[in-house]
Amino acid sequence: MTDPRRAALRTVLNPKSVAIVGASENPNKIGGRPLLYLTKFGYKGKVFPINPNRKETQGFKAYPSLAALPEAPETAIIAVPDDLAVQAIDDCAARGVKVAVVMASGFGETSDPVAKQKERRMADRGRASGMRIIGPNSQGLANFGSGAVLSFSTMFLETEARDGPVGVISQSGAMSVVPYALLRARGLGVRYACATGNDCDVSVSELASVVAEDPELKLLLLYLEAIRDPAPLAEAARIASARGLPIVALKAGRTPAGQKAAQSHTGALANEDRVVEAFLERHGIWRARDVNELVGGAELYLKGWKPKGRRLVAISNSGASCVMAADAATVAGLPIAALSAETRAGLAKILPTFATTTNPVDLTAALLSNSGLFGQILPVIARDPAADAFFIGIPVAGQGYDVDSFAGDAAVFARRTGKPIVVAIPQANIGAKFKAQGLPVFTTDSEAVSALGAYLSHMELMQRVAAEPPRAPGSPRSMPATTRTLNEADSLALAGRYGLPVVEHHLCRSPEEAVAAFEALGAPVVVKGCSQDVPHKSEWGLVKLGLTDVEQVRSAYDDLDKTLRIAGARFEGAIVARMVKGLRELMIGAHLDPVFGAVVVVGDGGKYVEAMPDVQVLLPPFTGDDVLRALSRLRIAPLMAGVRGEPPLDADEFCNLAVRVGAMIAAPEAAVASVDLNPVIVGAQREGCTVVDGLVVLAG
Amino acid sequence: MTDPRRAALRTVLNPKSVAIVGASENPNKIGGRPLLYLTKFGYKGKVFPINPNRKETQGFKAYPSLAALPEAPETAIIAVPDDLAVQAIDDCAARGVKVAVVMASGFGETSDPVAKQKERRMADRGRASGMRIIGPNSQGLANFGSGAVLSFSTMFLETEARDGPVGVISQSGAMSVVPYALLRARGLGVRYACATGNDCDVSVSELASVVAEDPELKLLLLYLEAIRDPAPLAEAARIASARGLPIVALKAGRTPAGQKAAQSHTGALANEDRVVEAFLERHGIWRARDVNELVGGAELYLKGWKPKGRRLVAISNSGASCVMAADAATVAGLPIAALSAETRAGLAKILPTFATTTNPVDLTAALLSNSGLFGQILPVIARDPAADAFFIGIPVAGQGYDVDSFAGDAAVFARRTGKPIVVAIPQANIGAKFKAQGLPVFTTDSEAVSALGAYLSHMELMQRVAAEPPRAPGSPRSMPATTRTLNEADSLALAGRYGLPVVEHHLCRSPEEAVAAFEALGAPVVVKGCSQDVPHKSEWGLVKLGLTDVEQVRSAYDDLDKTLRIAGARFEGAIVARMVKGLRELMIGAHLDPVFGAVVVVGDGGKYVEAMPDVQVLLPPFTGDDVLRALSRLRIAPLMAGVRGEPPLDADEFCNLAVRVGAMIAAPEAAVASVDLNPVIVGAQREGCTVVDGLVVLAG
Repeated sequence: MTDPRRAALRTVLNPKSVAIVGASENPNKIGGRPLLYLTKFGYKGKVFPINPNRKETQGFKAYPSLAALPEAPETAIIAVPDDLAVQAIDDCAARGVKVAVVMASGFGETSDPVAKQKERRMADRGRASGMRIIGPNSQGLANFGSGAVLSFSTMFLETEARDGPVGVISQSGAMSVVPYALLRARGLGVRYACATGNDCDVSVSELASVVAEDPELKLLLLYLEAIRDPAPLAEAARIASARGLPIVALKAGRTPAGQKAAQSHTGALANEDRVVEAFLERHGIWRARDVNELVGGAELYLKGWKPKGRRLVAISNSGASCVMAADAATVAGLPIAALSAETRAGLAKILPTFATTTNPVDLTAALLSNSGLFGQILPVIARDPAADAFFIGIPVAGQGYDVDSFAGDAAVFARRTGKPIVVAIPQANIGAKFKAQGLPVFTTDSEAVSALGAYLSHMELMQRVAAEPPRAPGSPRSMPATTRTLNEADSLALAGRYGLPVVEHHLCRSPEEAVAAFEALGAPVVVKGCSQDVPHKSEWGLVKLGLTDVEQVRSAYDDLDKTLRIAGARFEGAIVARMVKGLRELMIGAHLDPVFGAVVVVGDGGKYVEAMPDVQVLLPPFTGDDVLRALSRLRIAPLMAGVRGEPPLDADEFCNLAVRVGAMIAAPEAAVASVDLNPVIVGAQREGCTVVDGLVVLAG
Repeated sequence: MTDPRRAALRTVLNPKSVAIVGASENPNKIGGRPLLYLTKFGYKGKVFPINPNRKETQGFKAYPSLAALPEAPETAIIAVPDDLAVQAIDDCAARGVKVAVVMASGFGETSDPVAKQKERRMADRGRASGMRIIGPNSQGLANFGSGAVLSFSTMFLETEARDGPVGVISQSGAMSVVPYALLRARGLGVRYACATGNDCDVSVSELASVVAEDPELKLLLLYLEAIRDPAPLAEAARIASARGLPIVALKAGRTPAGQKAAQSHTGALANEDRVVEAFLERHGIWRARDVNELVGGAELYLKGWKPKGRRLVAISNSGASCVMAADAATVAGLPIAALSAETRAGLAKILPTFATTTNPVDLTAALLSNSGLFGQILPVIARDPAADAFFIGIPVAGQGYDVDSFAGDAAVFARRTGKPIVVAIPQANIGAKFKAQGLPVFTTDSEAVSALGAYLSHMELMQRVAAEPPRAPGSPRSMPATTRTLNEADSLALAGRYGLPVVEHHLCRSPEEAVAAFEALGAPVVVKGCSQDVPHKSEWGLVKLGLTDVEQVRSAYDDLDKTLRIAGARFEGAIVARMVKGLRELMIGAHLDPVFGAVVVVGDGGKYVEAMPDVQVLLPPFTGDDVLRALSRLRIAPLMAGVRGEPPLDADEFCNLAVRVGAMIAAPEAAVASVDLNPVIVGAQREGCTVVDGLVVLAG
């Protein structure tokens, strides 16, 4: 907590003094906006415009240089371009500035090596002096709690600010303020809207980890285009998790086209998306796929609910709304709660005979004739313990309806149950009355239900992560400079040394050895050509299955020898192995990700793993339960439990294997660069698994 | 076109006279609203309130009864409840009313048999007299073109009406007006907002087919909870397709929970959702999954564009917007267009050096310093033939930006290219300026791009359907009252008679016959137990694969005999069949859907078809090309083309088989109730397919 580098970031969010290098009288210039905002948003500290040509700027006394200031400013905004910005960084460091916010563009985000070099020089100067740098190419930081709005974003002129419990941290300027604008349009207060730009020193993640300490924050939104270093993001997640602060992240560049665009935008390297997905989940961060998902559930997070389950009760004055809510609930994984007989009897007493008393509860158009129905049924439903969460849809209301009562009754209901509730109302004026009562209002049924589903899933995830916090990642294993591919025999031998159950086999160097192996193992056997030059054996016809006599084995050996020689590949012998029976071929892979380090992949096996992948990613260290959860998300999950009269698979043993592979690749001293065990033949429960083919790549 | 039943529906949309049975002075009552609306929306015809207790109602002369009217009204609204409504139908029929709109609820949508019987009585009376009935349980019909607003929906008091080129037809009252409200909130005019209720006579589809004739309509939106009869919907689609009118349909009840809710709502039977999907597509109707998708692309349909392709160019002043648009484009299946060298050189001359000249085109925050950039780059991009459609994202603008010029320049660009364009702007006031220029504005990048993607896909679908209009379905084959399951031998024999390539096999009644068959076929063979009582043979161990000698065959025969007898199933012999080699096991199934008639299913085969389905649905009659398109959507599609050194599969022959199975089940005289050919072993290109197992159920 006394780390001066973190302390500096607390300072920049609420500095005692701010200098603006390149301060402008024109509030529509980059160097003019921050002055306008510091005044407009009630910043209480000292403001020092630096402008050698003016005595005064926007009402503040101006200074010719940083050196001329009466004191060292805690923070400086650099609004001058190019070399002047580099010079300003030197000046700031010399003057004892704690944090510089560099708004100038045209550095590391370009393809120009000279510009990139200038950014490195700024970063080096900052590191050497202990001064922290936000940017360059940063739109700036806004803290509406302190009034320290060190930003040139136009958005704060356009959308009225209001302090509140949400923070937005983004590399992109636009994406620091678009969520802000959407939340403000919904009436929510936002405290932080910060853009870190090129992250030459301070990253989105590091700033997020400091913002996450703010005890008044209830929701933290992140926009990321690349994760260069997972450790600060894990640290932010750890801090947030410890105090129950939810983080929702939009990691863009999730497709190849998006990654290509991100490379042009912030020079972002392309993260493997499924690894990002696994990393975020492991740290309790909910992933939004677009801006709507990023801000969609904000109201729900601010309620302080403690959800207990996912069973939904839907109530509407329209049957169509009931049907669409039920469809949306299914998509969101929310079961429709079965109401108790008591509840149904209670509803039957109130509702007209043609209305339903099952869930979803359809009040029908009878609500137009009798506005009291709504207020009468809610207490009946509130008593039913089967409900974990509620949806109320009012697709049509207005004249003839007592909308004020509806809104009031719904608010009482929400308070009394204390359970999550969402409301869908397409008419803005009707929705406003429910909003005024503190209820989360969405335009359509599907928006409401899918936001609720995401919120409940995130709460479950946060509980799981809080119960078993991920270990803080050390520095991930670095990528080896050179690698060496083992042939199959050596790969299997290594796997065996790590305790993996490898198929019984012999590496044979002559037809005679092959025959001897066949006789030792007994029919049937498989004979495979062994060569580190040919990792995909089956495409080359190097796998001979189901051989049952000596002649077949001998001829297979000769054939493999010939095939490999014709292909110009080393013939390192023939593997004669026992044919293993099992129920399904799965796979376990592991590799080193350049950013996230060790990654384990489990899934369906066989030859079509690339063509039709059905896999899940795990980040070591993980437990057997984590593997089991991953398997439950596979397309082949039904097979794990046994279908069509088949017994369940030995998932426990497969999970053990995956954990062992995780240990094999994750240990800092490990020599393994990648592992591909495919197939792993999985037997019925308690019958175990057998690795029948493997490919290991070693570092070095 | 002179069908009097259709003519009546044209009448109800613009009647010369309207009677309101149960007219009320109170405009918030069901019988009062229509009077208010007829006045408010400028209805020019005659209005006859029927109310025995009043001389005048809402300014109109009131009459004691239909009989007392000076003339027969073309249309009558029935706003009295229960038995009075049934009586009113009788009176209307007697008086010569052409169409009655029954607003009363509590009939067929309830579980009460007496109420259901009353609805049937109304329907019968209508049918006997030639009078058409809308409803009961209808919220009414609104035509803002004619002012004939025969509706009690509150929405038309709440949301200002404006006539326009969109029609909404729905069973549900709420879903006739929610799309209306959302479209109106976006400034779009809506002509029709009609709710047909219980559809005891006139269905959503039939009304849609009449509305589709309106030459001024440019977009028709449907809300359906059940499709009881596909013929009128196909007819509506045919009329719409012939004049290029797009239909977008929200078919709710797409999940089991939604179907259950729909049953309570309108007594809707549960359609099999994947059959609905295939039916809508076949008829060129785009399917929306929720209300947002239903109305999301409305602006695009109204532009009259003639899209030529799907390659997208994205332009933004924010790199993040570029990245997110590229991600969204990938999800929507829109490739990012490669700009020509000429275009890129042109952009390089205009943009600052740190901006990109690749697509997406990122103007960067430099737009704040130089508002002219936007107008300068657009003509350069407009000249590039690689672009089929455009996305413009302006996530931040306002003071300091020349927004009026941006909007004007974008509009000129849109007109000049004539190509589809979408704009994403989160700030309502900025977006309004683009809207005022006639541009389709969305709040977020992903909304804009996904609406564009759906629109382009729908346009492609409409072109395909227009080029090859589906045959108007005759009455679909009705479900047989009783069925008879054939055993495998008989099933294969029948398949063979329909020209399907069935595996060479013998049905053997003794071990000796089995041995003789083995000797005739040659090793290896498969021996299977044949019994109509056991359709799933493998679960019972009734399939013996790869038998290579006489002893194995003999013992297999005895074993099958014993197994079936122990199971208490008929032993109808053993099938000895040649072992067929191929590349993949696929499947072809066919069955009769109670609503849509003959349905063919193609997909991946094997024993996990139910546990892990990878299938597509086809509705006969269809062509080999239709099957090919279906196969291209399967998860296993990559295998069709050949992967990992494998040759492509013989897709052509498989398509031929599927077409033959379609003919086998669809012919009106066909005796087949269902077919399940699984596996169909598919060989390499030109090596053909073999049906190795089959199960046929006959009608009767």
